[in-house]
Amino acid sequence: MRQLKAKWLEMTTPQATKTAVLVIGGAEDKVHGREILRTFLDRAGAKDAHITIIPSASREPSIIGARYVNIFEDMGVKKVEILDIRERDHCHDRYYKESLEQCTGVFLTGGDQLRLCGVLADTPVMDIIRGRVKTGELTLAGTSAGAAVMGHHMIAGGGSGETPNRSLVDMATGLGFIPELIVDQHFHNRNRMVRLMSAIASHPDRLGIGIDEDTCAMFEKDGWLEVMGKGAVTIIDSSELTHTNEPRVGATEPLSLHNLRVHILSHGDRYHLYGRTVLPSVGRISS
Amino acid sequence: MRQLKAKWLEMTTPQATKTAVLVIGGAEDKVHGREILRTFLDRAGAKDAHITIIPSASREPSIIGARYVNIFEDMGVKKVEILDIRERDHCHDRYYKESLEQCTGVFLTGGDQLRLCGVLADTPVMDIIRGRVKTGELTLAGTSAGAAVMGHHMIAGGGSGETPNRSLVDMATGLGFIPELIVDQHFHNRNRMVRLMSAIASHPDRLGIGIDEDTCAMFEKDGWLEVMGKGAVTIIDSSELTHTNEPRVGATEPLSLHNLRVHILSHGDRYHLYGRTVLPSVGRISS
Repeated sequence: MRQLKAKWLEMTTPQATKTAVLVIGGAEDKVHGREILRTFLDRAGAKDAHITIIPSASREPSIIGARYVNIFEDMGVKKVEILDIRERDHCHDRYYKESLEQCTGVFLTGGDQLRLCGVLADTPVMDIIRGRVKTGELTLAGTSAGAAVMGHHMIAGGGSGETPNRSLVDMATGLGFIPELIVDQHFHNRNRMVRLMSAIASHPDRLGIGIDEDTCAMFEKDGWLEVMGKGAVTIIDSSELTHTNEPRVGATEPLSLHNLRVHILSHGDRYHLYGRTVLPSVGRISS
Repeated sequence: MRQLKAKWLEMTTPQATKTAVLVIGGAEDKVHGREILRTFLDRAGAKDAHITIIPSASREPSIIGARYVNIFEDMGVKKVEILDIRERDHCHDRYYKESLEQCTGVFLTGGDQLRLCGVLADTPVMDIIRGRVKTGELTLAGTSAGAAVMGHHMIAGGGSGETPNRSLVDMATGLGFIPELIVDQHFHNRNRMVRLMSAIASHPDRLGIGIDEDTCAMFEKDGWLEVMGKGAVTIIDSSELTHTNEPRVGATEPLSLHNLRVHILSHGDRYHLYGRTVLPSVGRISS
């Protein structure tokens, strides 16, 4: 038991030098404690961080980009820049590629996830980001639309207030930084449990992960995620699914989904992406 | 396999003489096929049924009572009466007690579940209904508020659009016909997944069951329920729960709930209340 506790303590020790992928449910605190943004900066190198903001999801990329520049500068970062990529052609630009080769953190803002994928998918810029995230050279964060793109399959839109059915959710292809996931954001705030379940019904080989506003699932390279922020991270695990009806996309009849495993995780809770293991926060265990 | 299939076929054979408890999510079809109301009548004795309507949940009991009288008469039932119980004193009335001793089906209408419990709980009238349901002499149906009262613990109200937390849901004591349950109604239609999960966090020894509009969970005496109607019945089973935080009622911090088992059941699917077993509808298995 003591060994186990030591292991947990080690796991919760600040690891400012280790890169991570931060998947943020939108509306993260930008004014007060800024826990999530602070953690992003710490993982990107703290005051030595070189942060690149990609606001391509937004219809007002220069406004939202400048807002994050102000926030990060206010938090003491000396090198922050905006890559205002609006066209796929920009993704071949030498300056942009060099910036992404050198930075220590990339931040994907909110907006429209289809726009973000439309601009970035399968471009040299994406190859650089993906490669450097994979080798652990770069800390990546995405909020709202920037979170939605993290999986291979992506929720592009959908409804609520209905019996789960396959026409409830519109799927597209994401940027695939963590391809095992289907991410949904603003999750409980916008009653999206059912649209994520409907998405998982069509892709039961993926893990559904719903992230509330001002909440973050931070993924370590070893497969553990930890929850930060004021809301919950909801995991929908269909690996034990025994039955689902009519795997036809777009069908409106009610879904059957038998034997989903669901976890509601709050601050400090951890989950292992491959082991499908859940751990309460250390504070709770020892109290 | 053949034996198993024969067993399933036997289970789906119409059982017009067997009583049941029908828990209906509200807004059941009253005009077209009337599948749910038709099944209630069949189980209460078809054209020989003697139906007693209890509209006490409603603020307009005579209007809603008369509406169901018209429907059931239109469906060929010869004996339908309204017990317009508005005060607890009425529950000692000899005429009311005799009616309930003789009828073959009781229908609890929608309205306010607190009003319904306030009038009926711990009265001679309730003793008669509960006793005759238990011995299988009486088919019971409740819709909306009439469904909410089925468990021992009852959801009296609550919110949506928030991270699950214990202040999200107001609990009260129900009428306890199926004490193991916590029922929620108008379920996906009103985005109530989170309030039912929040209720289960406070009462993890109970089974959460969320019923959509025009949808029914029909409970047999042997513990099986079968889904009827156009929506889904959602089961939230916390029997494998490994962790929940702060079991304090009314707390607003986000809930942790690790290892919930969730089933979305649609038309024809079955679930066993005690065995916690789920079976797809027979049609789906053989197709």
